Amino acid sequence: MTEPRTTLPPFATSFPNSQKREHGPLCVPSRLITLTNGETVTVYDTTGPQGSEIRSGLHKRRKPWIDLRVQRGDQNFSQLHYARLGVITEEMQFCAIRENVDPEFVRSEIARGRAIIPANRNHPEVEPMIIGRNFLVKINANIGNSALGSSIEDEVEKLQWSIRWGADTVMDLSTGKDLHDTREWILRNSPVPIGTVPIYEALERVQGRVEDLSLKLYLEVIEEQAAQGVDYFTVHAGVLLRYVPLTANRTTGIVSRGGAIMAKWCLSHHKENFLYTGFNEICKVMAKYDVSFSLGDGLRPGCIADANDEAQFSELDTLGELTKQAWAHDVQVMIEGPGHVPMHLIKENMDRQLAVCHEAPFYTLGPLTTDIAPGYDHITSAIGAAMIGSFGCAMLCYVTPKEHLGLPDREDVKQGVIAYKIAAHAADLAKGHPGAQTRDNALSKARFEFRWNDQFDLSLDPETARKYHDAMLPQDGAKVAHFCSMCGPRFCSMKITEEVREYAKRGMADKSKEFSESGGDLYRAVEA
Amino acid sequence: MTEPRTTLPPFATSFPNSQKREHGPLCVPSRLITLTNGETVTVYDTTGPQGSEIRSGLHKRRKPWIDLRVQRGDQNFSQLHYARLGVITEEMQFCAIRENVDPEFVRSEIARGRAIIPANRNHPEVEPMIIGRNFLVKINANIGNSALGSSIEDEVEKLQWSIRWGADTVMDLSTGKDLHDTREWILRNSPVPIGTVPIYEALERVQGRVEDLSLKLYLEVIEEQAAQGVDYFTVHAGVLLRYVPLTANRTTGIVSRGGAIMAKWCLSHHKENFLYTGFNEICKVMAKYDVSFSLGDGLRPGCIADANDEAQFSELDTLGELTKQAWAHDVQVMIEGPGHVPMHLIKENMDRQLAVCHEAPFYTLGPLTTDIAPGYDHITSAIGAAMIGSFGCAMLCYVTPKEHLGLPDREDVKQGVIAYKIAAHAADLAKGHPGAQTRDNALSKARFEFRWNDQFDLSLDPETARKYHDAMLPQDGAKVAHFCSMCGPRFCSMKITEEVREYAKRGMADKSKEFSESGGDLYRAVEA
Repeated sequence: MTEPRTTLPPFATSFPNSQKREHGPLCVPSRLITLTNGETVTVYDTTGPQGSEIRSGLHKRRKPWIDLRVQRGDQNFSQLHYARLGVITEEMQFCAIRENVDPEFVRSEIARGRAIIPANRNHPEVEPMIIGRNFLVKINANIGNSALGSSIEDEVEKLQWSIRWGADTVMDLSTGKDLHDTREWILRNSPVPIGTVPIYEALERVQGRVEDLSLKLYLEVIEEQAAQGVDYFTVHAGVLLRYVPLTANRTTGIVSRGGAIMAKWCLSHHKENFLYTGFNEICKVMAKYDVSFSLGDGLRPGCIADANDEAQFSELDTLGELTKQAWAHDVQVMIEGPGHVPMHLIKENMDRQLAVCHEAPFYTLGPLTTDIAPGYDHITSAIGAAMIGSFGCAMLCYVTPKEHLGLPDREDVKQGVIAYKIAAHAADLAKGHPGAQTRDNALSKARFEFRWNDQFDLSLDPETARKYHDAMLPQDGAKVAHFCSMCGPRFCSMKITEEVREYAKRGMADKSKEFSESGGDLYRAVEA
Repeated sequence: MTEPRTTLPPFATSFPNSQKREHGPLCVPSRLITLTNGETVTVYDTTGPQGSEIRSGLHKRRKPWIDLRVQRGDQNFSQLHYARLGVITEEMQFCAIRENVDPEFVRSEIARGRAIIPANRNHPEVEPMIIGRNFLVKINANIGNSALGSSIEDEVEKLQWSIRWGADTVMDLSTGKDLHDTREWILRNSPVPIGTVPIYEALERVQGRVEDLSLKLYLEVIEEQAAQGVDYFTVHAGVLLRYVPLTANRTTGIVSRGGAIMAKWCLSHHKENFLYTGFNEICKVMAKYDVSFSLGDGLRPGCIADANDEAQFSELDTLGELTKQAWAHDVQVMIEGPGHVPMHLIKENMDRQLAVCHEAPFYTLGPLTTDIAPGYDHITSAIGAAMIGSFGCAMLCYVTPKEHLGLPDREDVKQGVIAYKIAAHAADLAKGHPGAQTRDNALSKARFEFRWNDQFDLSLDPETARKYHDAMLPQDGAKVAHFCSMCGPRFCSMKITEEVREYAKRGMADKSKEFSESGGDLYRAVEA
C-alpha cells in the first residue's frame, strides 16, 4: 500500500501548461512553458522528481557516477580536487547544461574556488547545482523544527514546497527532537543540496550546556551528518576569542545562534574557538565526503546600528584565512554574510568579502535594509538581497514574513522563496546574465498582446496572478479581452498603443512615399 | 443623526500605545509611541484627523493662513513665488517642523526648485508636506474608480486607509462615473495633497474620442479641478509628435494611459501635442491656484526591454525644458519617472533627471526591476524604488500586488503602502537622513531586550507583527518571555548574548584587575 506522498497541491496546479523535461544522458531538468501562440519558453527548474513517495525517497541519479569513481579507485571525491586535476565531472557537466555555459568554464571556476557544487558523495539524489558569481544567482530556504513544534512530515513538505517555488538549496536548521531522522528524510527526498549547522546537534547532545561542547564531540556529529549526505555545513570557526568583546557594546550583540554558542564557549573556557583550532581535523571529515564549507558569520550584525562594524569585519578576515586552509584540503568553500545592513553599506560587504576571502562565493542572509518592518522582512531583505546579488553575491538566504516573529508555515515559506526569486532574478538581469531577460521579454510581450493566460503561465506564481485577475474579471472571455480591469475598455493604454503603431506604420508609409518622391533626402526623412 | 464615518478599524487597533499629537501654533502632527520602559519615540504622521465624518469633511486648517494673504492683497499665492521673495510661509514652517529642519532651508530649497509643497489654495484641509531630495523620501498611493467598478465611499475609504499606513500624497486616477463628485469627497476628506491626471476627465467629456480633445477643453477641465482644490496635476506635455515613432519598435509600446492618449492625438492630427504648445496657458491656471506640475512620463518604459531608450530620454529632455517654463510662471514642478528598469540602469535615470530637469524633484513609479512576477510587483518595484530613493528620488509612487492584474482592494492598498514605506525608509537610512535611524534603533533595542510589545508597537504594522507572533506563542506570558519561537528557550542567541555580555563584563573586570596588577601594559590588555 502506498501512502500519499504529500498534501501539497499537484505540480500542474502550480504551473499550468508547463512540462518538466530532462535533457541528455545526464537527465538535466528544466521546465518548458508552452504559450497559446505555440511558442515555448524554457526555465531553470528546481522542483525535482514529482510524485515519488516520502518513505521510498528519490531516485539516486548520481549513484552510477559515484560508483564508477569508486570502481576506478579514486581516493578524493571532492569536486575541487577533480577540477584542479582538470577533470570535468558529471556534476560539472550537469551544471554547465543547467546554466547554458561551457563545462570547461564550470571546471575552471571551481578550480579557482570562485564557485562550488555542494554535492556530498552520500547524497546521490541531488540534481547538481553551482554557486558562484559568474552563474545564476541562487537562493536558499531554511526549514527545520524547533523545540516548540512541527513534525518530520511537515519538514519534508516544507522542503518540497520550497523547491516547488524555486529554492536552489535548503538548510535544515532543526533544533528540536528527532534531528537525525528528520535530516534523513529530508536528504532522501531532496533533489537540492541540503545544508546544516552541526553545532546545533552537538549542543543537543550535551543537553544545551555550551561549556560541555568539544572538538571531539563536534567531529563525531559532522562525521554522522556527512555520512548521511549533508552537502554543506555552516561552521562558525571565525568567532575568535578576541573578537567577542567587540560585540559587547552593540545594540543587538550576537544574533547568530551558532555565533552566540561559540562566543559563550570561548568566554567560559577563556580558550580559542575549537572550530578554529581544530579546523584541519574538520576539513579532513568534510574532504572525505565532499561536504562544502559555508563559513558562518557568527558575528554578523543583527540590526542597522551594528552593520559593518569591527566585530563583523574581523571575523570576515579570519574566514578568508580559513578559506585557504580548506582549499589546501580540497574542500569547497562559500562564505556567509549579513544580516542587517543599510543600503549604502551593502557594497562594502561584497567588496571586502571578495578581497579578503579570495573570491570564494558569498552567501548572505538578506541583508535587511531596515529594522522597522517585522512581518515584512521578506521585503526589507529582498531589497538588500537584490542589491548584493547584483554586486556579485552568489547565493541569497531567504527571509520569510515571520522572521523575528515565529517559525514560517507553508505560506510564509512560499512568500519568502518568491521574494527571493525576484531578488535573484533582478540581480541576474542587472549582471546581464545571458538569457536571463528571455522570460521577462516573453511575459511582457504576452502582456502587450493581451495573452492573459500566457502572462500568468510565465510568471513566478501563475496561480496567484490568475487569482488576482479573476477577482476583477472572472469571466473566461476576459482572458482574451483586449483591455484590463485597471483602465477598462476605453482608456487602455496598450489598446491605444496598438492604434498608435498602426498610425505610425501608416505615417511611416506616407513618409516613405514622400521620401521616394522627394528624391530621398535622408535627413528630412529622419526628422519626420 | 451622524452616519458612521468609515468601516475602517479604529486608529488604536492599527497603532496601539500610540498617541496623535499636534505641535505648536501650526498644529503640526506627529505620532508618539510610548514604550513599556517609559521611553517614547516620535514618528512622522500622515494619518490626518481621525473620527470626522465624510459628509462634513475635515477641518480647514490652512484657511486662516490663506485668508490673511487675501486680506493683505496678495496676487500670487504660489509657494515658489513666496520662497523667491524670501518669505517663509506657514506651509514652509509646517514642513520644517515636520522634517525637523530649519524653515529657511525649506524656503531656499523651494526657491531653487529642488523641492515643492503641493498645496492648492483651495485645499485648506491639507497638512502641508514637502517633496524634495533633501527631505524624507515620500510615497504616493493611487486610488480611483474605473469604468468597471467601485463607489465614492470605497474611494474615500481607500484614501483614509492609504494615509493610515503612511501615504504622503494620494492620486485620484478615477476614469469612471461621477468624476467630479468622487474628487470632491476625496479632497474634502484628505489631509494629504491630492494629484490627478486631468486628461482622463477631458477624454470622458468627449466620450473617449481622443481626436476630439483640445486645449480649450483641457483648460476648462483643469480650471474646474484646480478650483476644487487638486494639489498637483500630471500633465503629459513631453509626448512630442516626433517622439511617438520612437516607441513603435518597443516590446510594450506606450504603457502610460496619458501618454498613449496624447500620442494618439498627435498622430491623428499630425500636430504637436497641445499640452506642449499650450503649456503657458496651462501654467497660468496652475499659478492661480498654486497647483504643482507633476510632468508626466508618457513614454516611460513598460518592461525591462524598453528601459532607458531614446523615446524615454527624449521626453525627459523636453520635461527639463518645460520645467524652466513652469518656473517662469512661479509654478512648482516635479518630474515623473519610470516604470520598469533593471537595477543596473536605475542610477542613470536619476542622474539624467537631475541634470536635464535642473534638480526639480523626481517622482518615480517603482521602478519594477523585473517583469516576471505579476502578483508580487509591490516587491519587484520596492527594490527599484528603494534604490532610486537612495540615489535622490524625492517621491515613490506605490505599486500594489494587483498591478497589471486588477484594481487594488483595501488589503492591496495596505500591502502597497507598506512595501513603499519600507523602500522610502531604507532610502532615508542610506541617505543618512538625520534621525531616520532612531526608530530602527529603538525597535532593535526592544527586540534585543525581549520587549515584544514595544517591538510590535514600533513597527510599520503592529497588528500584523503581533498576529504573526501570536500564531506561534499566543500566551500573554510569551510577550515578556526571554526567548522566541524561532529557537525556543535553549538556543536563543539573544539570550546567550546576554550571558556573553555578563561574561565579557566579568572578563573585562578580571582583565582590568590583572591589568592594574601587572603595571598597566596597554597592549596586553587590548589583546585579551
